[in-house]
Amino acid sequence: MDESHAPDHQNEGKTMKNLGYYNGVIDQIDAMRIPMNDRSNYFGDGIYEVCLVANGVIFALEDHLNRFYDNLDKVQIHFTYSKQALKALLQDMVERVEGTSLSLYWQVSRGTAKRSHVFPDPSVNANLMIMVDQLNLPRKDMLYKLITLPDIRFLRCDIKSLNLLPNVLASQAAKEAGCDEAVLHRNGIVSECAHSNLFYLKDQVLYTAPLNHLILPGITRARLIACAKRLGIAVVEAPFTLEELKQADEVIVTSTTKQCVRAFELDKEAIALRDPVTFTALQDAFFHEFEEETKQ
Amino acid sequence: MDESHAPDHQNEGKTMKNLGYYNGVIDQIDAMRIPMNDRSNYFGDGIYEVCLVANGVIFALEDHLNRFYDNLDKVQIHFTYSKQALKALLQDMVERVEGTSLSLYWQVSRGTAKRSHVFPDPSVNANLMIMVDQLNLPRKDMLYKLITLPDIRFLRCDIKSLNLLPNVLASQAAKEAGCDEAVLHRNGIVSECAHSNLFYLKDQVLYTAPLNHLILPGITRARLIACAKRLGIAVVEAPFTLEELKQADEVIVTSTTKQCVRAFELDKEAIALRDPVTFTALQDAFFHEFEEETKQ
Repeated sequence: MDESHAPDHQNEGKTMKNLGYYNGVIDQIDAMRIPMNDRSNYFGDGIYEVCLVANGVIFALEDHLNRFYDNLDKVQIHFTYSKQALKALLQDMVERVEGTSLSLYWQVSRGTAKRSHVFPDPSVNANLMIMVDQLNLPRKDMLYKLITLPDIRFLRCDIKSLNLLPNVLASQAAKEAGCDEAVLHRNGIVSECAHSNLFYLKDQVLYTAPLNHLILPGITRARLIACAKRLGIAVVEAPFTLEELKQADEVIVTSTTKQCVRAFELDKEAIALRDPVTFTALQDAFFHEFEEETKQ
Repeated sequence: MDESHAPDHQNEGKTMKNLGYYNGVIDQIDAMRIPMNDRSNYFGDGIYEVCLVANGVIFALEDHLNRFYDNLDKVQIHFTYSKQALKALLQDMVERVEGTSLSLYWQVSRGTAKRSHVFPDPSVNANLMIMVDQLNLPRKDMLYKLITLPDIRFLRCDIKSLNLLPNVLASQAAKEAGCDEAVLHRNGIVSECAHSNLFYLKDQVLYTAPLNHLILPGITRARLIACAKRLGIAVVEAPFTLEELKQADEVIVTSTTKQCVRAFELDKEAIALRDPVTFTALQDAFFHEFEEETKQ
């Protein structure tokens, strides 16, 4: 037997570089299998979350859990774990993996059943899957190049679902253009990025798209807004255009794994970098909060 | 060892009720497993097809294969099987399953890799999955009740992707309303149904939505149009409204597994059933073609 593929659930030492979990089974991610008939596999019929883990602390876990259960309700997936039980399991998984900075991913699908569009029989249980892996912590000095693309996603972008093909295609298009993220817009009105929210600063006011069915209610988005308000920076949550983005003093991309990143190029043209004082104050406030909450 | 779960690839008798295939491994569907890191599982990053099989004949297989390879191109999935090799494998799978009427499902995902939105390294191979299962042949005397729902799907409905959460939710809403299908519309302009195309007859002319990014180019849709033309029935492929649908003489729902079904109710109001002669001529022509092509 190949020991490297042996289940490690009796291994209490933190020797794993990564770890997968599926309905009670634990092993290295590459060794993990799921049933062919999991509805995640042929319908993308599930909800997910990603958290950043530093020094064993799952950052903003309560916020992620709240959004996760909200999303399960939105798509009517009945998941029997209490928030407390899921939290304990996620924490246990994180503790089994070595390393000071990790990504924690989990998803719940509507269950395993013969393929049929309608929901399976209520006796079918939801499936819980978790992946913990190594991740470099975000750096303050990252600078993003952006491209713009039409937002072709479905009209419930507030739901963090497993239907991510448009996000995949947009992310790949950004990469092929030598960029880091794609700014998605519907007829010139900006929604967000392929896997991030988007902000801009103009005359020391922070602007971002409003919470509705067109964007994800990002945890980092909410945190950055709270930081701005604490700093006395006015925040406007309202629809904005690509043209306004081009005229911005600063452009900020937020996500769980990259936190808040400054952008300096849009469709190969120079943008932003015109209000370093306000940008730095905001970013410092955000990173300070992150460091305080993830202290060892 | 539980014999019912033993791989059957050495079993040459047609004793299986259903069969799954994944990258060369064959077993009963319930026993099949796929890697956790298949991109189908967390992104829905793949393309699928469903065919109807009668008397061992895979109906309209060439058409399905052509659409399948077109779709792979649209999402830039590199799949190394030639059309001929895939065809032979699908035929072989069908021959291993007993029963005179079957469903044949297959999907190809972008491969197995650590979760990241951008495409994996080109050395990562696409994954091929097949499921063959029992299916009752469609009947001519089926009658559908329909509900109407806003079409919230992504703006590339021409791509038969694994991102089917909106279709799942619409199908479930239809079921909960005591209906068989959901008619999806954008601001009153009808696109298609949750897993079918939609036609109506008015003054002996056959109407359906045009082929564009808002509907799937259904194989049954194309066949019904061809039948109509052979019968001398004029066909108009143009956008139409819910109001026009309500005033129709006949409403016809087409799909691979149900073929062409007559509808008689829309949002609990009686519709259609006003031109049985033309409807029956069309349906008979379609079923005749099906029966001719799937003769033993």
